[in-house]
Amino acid sequence: MINAAICTIGDEILIGQIVDTNSAYISRELNGIGVRVTTKISIGDNFDDILKSLRICISENDLVVVTGGLGPTKDDITKKVLSVLTKSQSFYYHDEQLEFIKMICNKRGLEVSDLNRDQALVPNNCIVIPNKMGTAPGMVFDLGEGSNKKMLVSLPGVPYEMEGMMPYVNNLISKKLSPGYIHHKTIVTYGIAEASLAKMLEEWEDNLDKDVKLAYLPNPAIGIRLRLSVYNRERESSIKIVDRYLTELKSKLGSLVYGEGEDTLETLIFSILKNKGKRLAIAESCTGGTIMSRLVSIPGSSEIICGGVITYSNESKINLLKVQPETLDKYGAVSRECAQEMALGVKELYNADYAIATTGIAGPGGGTDMKPVGSVWVSVAGDFGIDSSYKVFTGDRTRNITRFSSEALNFLRIKIL
Amino acid sequence: MINAAICTIGDEILIGQIVDTNSAYISRELNGIGVRVTTKISIGDNFDDILKSLRICISENDLVVVTGGLGPTKDDITKKVLSVLTKSQSFYYHDEQLEFIKMICNKRGLEVSDLNRDQALVPNNCIVIPNKMGTAPGMVFDLGEGSNKKMLVSLPGVPYEMEGMMPYVNNLISKKLSPGYIHHKTIVTYGIAEASLAKMLEEWEDNLDKDVKLAYLPNPAIGIRLRLSVYNRERESSIKIVDRYLTELKSKLGSLVYGEGEDTLETLIFSILKNKGKRLAIAESCTGGTIMSRLVSIPGSSEIICGGVITYSNESKINLLKVQPETLDKYGAVSRECAQEMALGVKELYNADYAIATTGIAGPGGGTDMKPVGSVWVSVAGDFGIDSSYKVFTGDRTRNITRFSSEALNFLRIKIL
Repeated sequence: MINAAICTIGDEILIGQIVDTNSAYISRELNGIGVRVTTKISIGDNFDDILKSLRICISENDLVVVTGGLGPTKDDITKKVLSVLTKSQSFYYHDEQLEFIKMICNKRGLEVSDLNRDQALVPNNCIVIPNKMGTAPGMVFDLGEGSNKKMLVSLPGVPYEMEGMMPYVNNLISKKLSPGYIHHKTIVTYGIAEASLAKMLEEWEDNLDKDVKLAYLPNPAIGIRLRLSVYNRERESSIKIVDRYLTELKSKLGSLVYGEGEDTLETLIFSILKNKGKRLAIAESCTGGTIMSRLVSIPGSSEIICGGVITYSNESKINLLKVQPETLDKYGAVSRECAQEMALGVKELYNADYAIATTGIAGPGGGTDMKPVGSVWVSVAGDFGIDSSYKVFTGDRTRNITRFSSEALNFLRIKIL
Repeated sequence: MINAAICTIGDEILIGQIVDTNSAYISRELNGIGVRVTTKISIGDNFDDILKSLRICISENDLVVVTGGLGPTKDDITKKVLSVLTKSQSFYYHDEQLEFIKMICNKRGLEVSDLNRDQALVPNNCIVIPNKMGTAPGMVFDLGEGSNKKMLVSLPGVPYEMEGMMPYVNNLISKKLSPGYIHHKTIVTYGIAEASLAKMLEEWEDNLDKDVKLAYLPNPAIGIRLRLSVYNRERESSIKIVDRYLTELKSKLGSLVYGEGEDTLETLIFSILKNKGKRLAIAESCTGGTIMSRLVSIPGSSEIICGGVITYSNESKINLLKVQPETLDKYGAVSRECAQEMALGVKELYNADYAIATTGIAGPGGGTDMKPVGSVWVSVAGDFGIDSSYKVFTGDRTRNITRFSSEALNFLRIKIL
C-alpha cells in the first residue's frame, strides 16, 4: 500500500479566506490509482513551516502532493522551499512553459513581465509538468532510493490548473511507485435522517466482514451517501465482496436509494429525462433559480430543459404563470394551490412535458406560526397529473434553499420513475 | 500570541468525498478573537491516528479545535479518543442535550433509539456545549497548567451545528487563554488578472512596513481579494497602518475595487439597488439561473428582484422576451443584438428598473471558430439606456458559468455607479 500526504500551502487557507477544494479532488484521484491518503495538512506562507512540515510528511509517507504557493506574487515561496529541500543545483527557464506564458499574455494583450517569465523558472532536478491552463508548471521530484523510493509533487493551487495536470501525475505515480488496491463504492440516498438510517442498518453493519467499512456522508444537496470500502484485498475479491454488500444494502433501502458513485439528484433527473426524450420547465419562487442552475451545471442540459421563470412577486405569478388572483387571496403564495397553479402555468408557458414549482419561506424573515421559516410547497406536473409535497426544514437561508431544491428534484424523481 | 491547530476527522475527507468547509469557518472565527491558526490537519476515522495527531497538535499549540467523528454511527470515534487522551474517569448523560434529542426525535415522529440517546453521553472532565441544532454536544477540555495552560475543543462536523457553537467556544477561549492581536483587512477587485495586479502593485508592495503582508486571493465568482495583515502590533497602531495602506491601495486601483471584507458582486448589487429603491429583472440563457440564485442567496433579496426567466431555446426567447425571429436568423442567439433584445424584453416583462441578459456558450460542446466555447454577451438595460459587453473565458463549463455570471453582475455595477 502506497501512503500519501497532501499539503496545501497558503495563508489564505489558514485564515479561512478560501476553502480548500484541491485536496478533496487530489484524494479522489489518488484513491483511483490505489494510493491511500493518510493525512492532509495546510500550512501558511512561511519558509520554515513549509520546510518542516514537508520533511515530516515525506518521512512518514511514500508520496507527498503539494499545492499552492507557485503564483507570481511575493507570498508564493513553494518553489524556493522545494529547491532547498531537494538540494537543487540550479534553475532554468522551461521552454515550453515560457512559450505558453508568452502566448497567454499576447492573447490578453499584456506585456510579458519578469514576474510572468519567472513562472517558467524551474529547478534542474525535477520532471516538469507543463501547465496548459495557466502560467505555473508542476514539478515532480524523486526522493529516496531502492525500496525507500519516494515522490514529491508540486502543483499550482488554482483548481482547474491543478486538475489539468493530475493525469500526468497519476501516470508518473503508477510508473514509479507501485500502488496497491483500494476499492470503494458508494450509493446515494435521499429522504432519511442519518440516525434513522444508522438504526435501520445497525444489525446489518455489525455483520460486515471486518475489513469492510461503511461510512455515512450526509450532504444537504445530495442526501446521504453510503460508502463501502475494502483495503488491501486482492482486486477480484474486493469487487466481489463490495458488490455483494451493495446489493444487500439496496434491497434493504428500496426507493430511498437513487444512485451510485457521484450521482446527484440533478444528474439523475437529467438521465431519466434524456432517456425518455422529455423536457422540463421550472417555476421558482423561494428557490430563486437554484434548481435550474443545478440542472444547467450538467453539460448538455439544454436537451432536457425548456426554460424557467423566477417569480418572486404575486404580480409575476399572475402575469407570467396565470396563477389566479383569488388563489393568492384565499390561500396565500405559500400554499399547495399556488404551487400547483405555478407548475401548470410554467408547463404551459414552455409547452413542457414536466414541470416543477416551488413556493416557500427561506428565511430569515417572512415566517408566521402557520407558515414557519423553512416551509416549502413543491408541485410537479406531467403525464401522471399533478402532485404536491409540503416540508418544513430547520436551517439558515442558504441551507433551506438547498434543501428546498433537493426536495423538488427528489419529488420529481419519485413521480416519474 | 495564541497558536491553534484545527483537526478535522473523517475518512470522507481523506478520500475526498467531502470538501472540508469547517476549518475555514473556524479559522475566521479564531482570527477574529486574536488566535493564529498555524496548521490544519485532516485525519481518518482511526483511533491510533487520531490520538497521535492530537498529541502532536496539543504539544505544538495552545489550542486545538477538533471537528467531526461525533455522529451516531460506528465510524464516529472522536469521543472515545478524547476520553483516553484526557484520561476521563467516567461518562454521564447530559440532561439538557438528552432532552433536546428527545424533542428532535418527537418532532420528526421518530422513536428515541440508543444511538440517539448515546449522543448525549459525555466524559466527566469536560465543559459541555449543548448543540441546539443537532444531537451531538460540543466538549471543551482544559489541559496543561499555569503558563502552559491549553485547551482542547471538540465540535460536531455538521457545519451549521458547529457554527452555532462557535460563540460559546470563542467566549471560553477569550476567558481561559489570553489571545493577542491580529489585524486583517481585505478589499475586493474585479476585472484584472492576478499577475497584472501584482505587476501594478510590485513597487508599492516592496515599500510596505516589514511586519505588514499583502496576499492575493483570486476567486472566479468574486474576483481578486487583496488582504493586508499585521500581526502582533498594538491594536491602535495595527488599525492605523492597515487603514493607511488600504487608502493608498484603493487610490491606485480605482474602479477595479468594488468592495471590502466579505463583499461580493451580489451583495454589492443588492446594496446599490436597495439604496436606490430600484428593482432588477434577469434573462439568463447560458448562465441558467446562476445570476439569480447568487442574488437570491442574500436575505431580503426579494426587495430588489422583480423576477427572472431562463430562456434556453430560441422559441422561449421569442415568445417570452419578444426577441425578433429576424435577429436570431441574422445574428444568432449568441450576439449583441439578441442579448440586447433579451434585456429589453425581460425589463418590460417584469416592469423592472434594471435588467441583465446573458447569452453565450458555456461548453464543452457548441463552440465555433467565430463563437468559441467560453464566449458570452452580457447586456444591461436601465435609466442609462442599454449597453453590452463581450468576453471570452477559458474554463470548463462550471467555471465559465461562474465567470459569465460575475461578468454580468460587474457590468451592471459599472453602469449604475
